[in-house]
Amino acid sequence: MCEKQSVKLSDALDRLKYNADGLIPAIAQQYDTNEVLMMAWMNRAAIEETLATQRVCYWSRSRQAYWRKGESSGQIQLFKALRIDCDADTLLIKVDQTGAACHTGRRDCFYQVVQGDDVIVDRKPIVDPETLYR
Amino acid sequence: MCEKQSVKLSDALDRLKYNADGLIPAIAQQYDTNEVLMMAWMNRAAIEETLATQRVCYWSRSRQAYWRKGESSGQIQLFKALRIDCDADTLLIKVDQTGAACHTGRRDCFYQVVQGDDVIVDRKPIVDPETLYR
Repeated sequence: MCEKQSVKLSDALDRLKYNADGLIPAIAQQYDTNEVLMMAWMNRAAIEETLATQRVCYWSRSRQAYWRKGESSGQIQLFKALRIDCDADTLLIKVDQTGAACHTGRRDCFYQVVQGDDVIVDRKPIVDPETLYR
Repeated sequence: MCEKQSVKLSDALDRLKYNADGLIPAIAQQYDTNEVLMMAWMNRAAIEETLATQRVCYWSRSRQAYWRKGESSGQIQLFKALRIDCDADTLLIKVDQTGAACHTGRRDCFYQVVQGDDVIVDRKPIVDPETLYR
């Protein structure tokens, strides 16, 4: 294989396959336990801000605004590493999550699980969501 | 909190927030090690086939066809669990991956990592990709 083993970060960010809205999905994974915490979207500026500040910043599609994770709730994500997939259309961000990643107060967003013909909630909030957004 | 703790699977699948193409992102995670292997897309029929066959089936956006993971390469994903996130717009699928999840022959697709001003490849193929697709 004649694969080039290193490229400039700015070139790699140019080559990411952003969607029509200029966004790319980013999976947030707790760096030490490998828990998948959440999935959100970033534009190029959010990626650059995350790398510069070492605090994870997404783009909120619902609010159409930068979403500096934890800015309102205090449940911040410290940046640990940024990985890019083979097709350059998905990011994996290793983070150190303070408290709850989910707006429901749960550690992660994937608290609904298929069990037979039902979908059940099998995780409880670790923080009262009422206290997160006041 | 007055959260309903159980819903019918068919209702839950109806309520998923598929995009304009009828697709929802699905993160594949190795069930025992928590490695994030890849991210791909599913439509409702791919989800139902995965649950019915216990083998993971995606929708290939490039080929515009069902993508029964491992059908050509032998690198199959046995289904272990399906989780749905808080906003019902992302799936987390726990799988047992045979061999390499990535078409490059690597265990996972996220083998490019940002290091300072560069992006480097820090994982080697575990299977020769030439042998995967003949």
